[in-house]
Amino acid sequence: MDLNEWMNSSLQGVVERLERDVHATFDVEAEDGLDLAGRNEIYGILDDLLGVLFPGCFSKEKVLKNEINFYLSDILRHISFRFGKHVREVFRYRCKKDNCINCNCDERATDALIKLIEALPDIREILMTDIQAAFDGDPAAKYLDEIILSYPCVDAIATYRIAHMLYTLQVPIIPRVMSERAHSQTGIDIHPGAQIGSRFFIDHGTGVVIGETCRIGKNVKIYQGVTLGATSPFDKDGVPRKGEKRHPDIEDDVIIYSNATILGGHTVIGKGSVIGGNTWITKSVPPNSQIFIRSRENGETLQEAQKKGGTQKK
Amino acid sequence: MDLNEWMNSSLQGVVERLERDVHATFDVEAEDGLDLAGRNEIYGILDDLLGVLFPGCFSKEKVLKNEINFYLSDILRHISFRFGKHVREVFRYRCKKDNCINCNCDERATDALIKLIEALPDIREILMTDIQAAFDGDPAAKYLDEIILSYPCVDAIATYRIAHMLYTLQVPIIPRVMSERAHSQTGIDIHPGAQIGSRFFIDHGTGVVIGETCRIGKNVKIYQGVTLGATSPFDKDGVPRKGEKRHPDIEDDVIIYSNATILGGHTVIGKGSVIGGNTWITKSVPPNSQIFIRSRENGETLQEAQKKGGTQKK
Amino acid sequence: MDLNEWMNSSLQGVVERLERDVHATFDVEAEDGLDLAGRNEIYGILDDLLGVLFPGCFSKEKVLKNEINFYLSDILRHISFRFGKHVREVFRYRCKKDNCINCNCDERATDALIKLIEALPDIREILMTDIQAAFDGDPAAKYLDEIILSYPCVDAIATYRIAHMLYTLQVPIIPRVMSERAHSQTGIDIHPGAQIGSRFFIDHGTGVVIGETCRIGKNVKIYQGVTLGATSPFDKDGVPRKGEKRHPDIEDDVIIYSNATILGGHTVIGKGSVIGGNTWITKSVPPNSQIFIRSRENGETLQEAQKKGGTQKK
Repeated sequence: MDLNEWMNSSLQGVVERLERDVHATFDVEAEDGLDLAGRNEIYGILDDLLGVLFPGCFSKEKVLKNEINFYLSDILRHISFRFGKHVREVFRYRCKKDNCINCNCDERATDALIKLIEALPDIREILMTDIQAAFDGDPAAKYLDEIILSYPCVDAIATYRIAHMLYTLQVPIIPRVMSERAHSQTGIDIHPGAQIGSRFFIDHGTGVVIGETCRIGKNVKIYQGVTLGATSPFDKDGVPRKGEKRHPDIEDDVIIYSNATILGGHTVIGKGSVIGGNTWITKSVPPNSQIFIRSRENGETLQEAQKKGGTQKK
Repeated sequence: MDLNEWMNSSLQGVVERLERDVHATFDVEAEDGLDLAGRNEIYGILDDLLGVLFPGCFSKEKVLKNEINFYLSDILRHISFRFGKHVREVFRYRCKKDNCINCNCDERATDALIKLIEALPDIREILMTDIQAAFDGDPAAKYLDEIILSYPCVDAIATYRIAHMLYTLQVPIIPRVMSERAHSQTGIDIHPGAQIGSRFFIDHGTGVVIGETCRIGKNVKIYQGVTLGATSPFDKDGVPRKGEKRHPDIEDDVIIYSNATILGGHTVIGKGSVIGGNTWITKSVPPNSQIFIRSRENGETLQEAQKKGGTQKK
Repeated sequence: MDLNEWMNSSLQGVVERLERDVHATFDVEAEDGLDLAGRNEIYGILDDLLGVLFPGCFSKEKVLKNEINFYLSDILRHISFRFGKHVREVFRYRCKKDNCINCNCDERATDALIKLIEALPDIREILMTDIQAAFDGDPAAKYLDEIILSYPCVDAIATYRIAHMLYTLQVPIIPRVMSERAHSQTGIDIHPGAQIGSRFFIDHGTGVVIGETCRIGKNVKIYQGVTLGATSPFDKDGVPRKGEKRHPDIEDDVIIYSNATILGGHTVIGKGSVIGGNTWITKSVPPNSQIFIRSRENGETLQEAQKKGGTQKK
């Protein structure tokens, strides 16, 4: 068939069928819903926020030392205006879907925006502890600036700390859009609901999954492919465990090596423990545990546990 | 050495050596081959196609409710024109390489383009079942729109369903370029040749690999790091297994948890089975099997199989 | 609170706190440090370099056969100018931080730039062996051009070979920024310090980690999720092992299947060995070893070693 002919005769039929489907799925009023717009705007604002936290590194342009104040004022005004609009939109959109009545969504939106921006200096401060932990923990790291410019955990953790703030302020949709942006860029998937302390370092990072109800203490280090997940998303009756504590707690000073899997909402990895690569853990381990896979003489791999300083088998 | 001096005296030598190498490798006629252009055009068209499937979410701009028809007409015309050109080019390019004689490649190209666009409403319909499955399967999911905007499996599966259509229409090169775009964005690597039923959900997704000759039934759910692969790319004589069935079949209603590896063209995971995390499977399992890794008292990890409702060891 | 009011009254306080923090962290002179600028410039130059290596595939625009010389001259001049500036900046920046005196950093920068550009034809040549290895090793590969356009290992290995050249020339920061760009795009994390021979193929690739002090021979093939890492980043006294050989050696003709983990600076995988998926290796294996996970009758998984042609257990 001739393409022009087909475009004139048949394309409109495709358009109409698609239009019907779109209307049927998104049952929202004209001025919202589809008006939510694409994700690219949110990505752009996230990039600007990262530029505020690390001017000259994550910013699009050079920033001279004597321009920092001017640069920060300008970009924070810009973020307040553009992001303010988006935060209001998602609150209104969600309120309409949830049939809120007389809801103060505009007020909550403005409040969330202001709280986020006022928290940025604190977020920067805790991120500097994360970056210092990367420097202390990776023999390949030679300079702090190299870490900011090239370690994927900086993007992932900075985005997480922004998204977590918005999550606790109950901003709809945007925290997950932001965390998936970082996931796409780095392969590190941190749910905005997770709670993570200072001096957090993720090396390499591809394949890391940190679930919504994880609690991670201070000075924790994890490697690529580590899953901190749920044993099953369903309870024994097959009902999804929405709202439950489903993911583990990791106490202070724990190291978790590559591709270890730690599952379950009641699983606690005790303070100071070292979890070896490729291990599979679904029960709590006491403080200072060391769990490793070893190859035995006969070729079997054995998962061993021992206390630091002792040789107690698990 | 002074850079300007070097540029004037020596740069042209580098250019000429590179030029010779490029000519030697791509032995194609002037008007094609290199004329294939970069991948960025294909990426742009893929983004437009995703915008057609989910206007207001994946589209670059806002789309008001009363603008949907206008938006879809406009962008589909644009896609028909631009993508039509690319599809014709890859058919011609491949035909020339394959020394086709009197080949109807232009006709096949137009036919493929029209078939793809006419299939878009069906593709959208099956994607809505995938999105519903994500909602049903993930306790962290609270709204459908959040899934479309932030779940990487939506990008990956939508791109797969478009690329698979082009693959079955034997469009050269473009399906793989599209699937690698999604792989790059999401860490989910689905070969366009795989066959996948409705209500398909991938959670987190980083590291998932689904091979060319996989067949996946309806209502299947898989997690990050799952490989559905080949035992070996070579037969016992070391000849690559081009054209053979090399990857497993996954029947309806199967769940495969994180980092499980299932290999082989004769391996069938029976309907309703649950495959635990970190398992290693190279043989078929009957319907309703449950295969799990457990830690034994002595520290060994044990891969156990049992039938639902029974305790039969594998 | 009203947003405008807050912007007028309180935003400047946030700016000033951030400004103080930024100054405190980056203790550099006005004309450098922050002047290092963002990573996007480096990404753009890397894209141009990849376009030089594969015009018409990685280039942004079409390149006709009779335009190749013109295209290459133009873009290489452009790269020399723009990248020259960046290389000089990072050398100066690092020198200032390291308190070098009378350092010839400008000269070293120009020298590094010229050496890189003059090496591009050699880099292209070795990349063509990598691409041929991909074709030979993957049954799903049907055409060389499809590999260049859609295999993530081409981006990852091309970027690695450029970054490794800059690393050996001791260019600061930029090699790691480049390798993390490829990591972000492909999920393949190759440290620029690693040494890798010709005919190197990575299939799928998500989650691959290749450490700084790895040495990989010729004709090596690895799959997704393979870690070539360090046993521990610290020595027994807890001091980071900066500068030590920490990562394994992989000899010629080795195949390493998905999610295998090989650790340690003294671990050598002998020539011609095949390392099965999901294996865990921390000791050297002799040439022609075959190490595989097998499921035993009782459900345990067993890691077996045998010599090719023999049945010697490990």
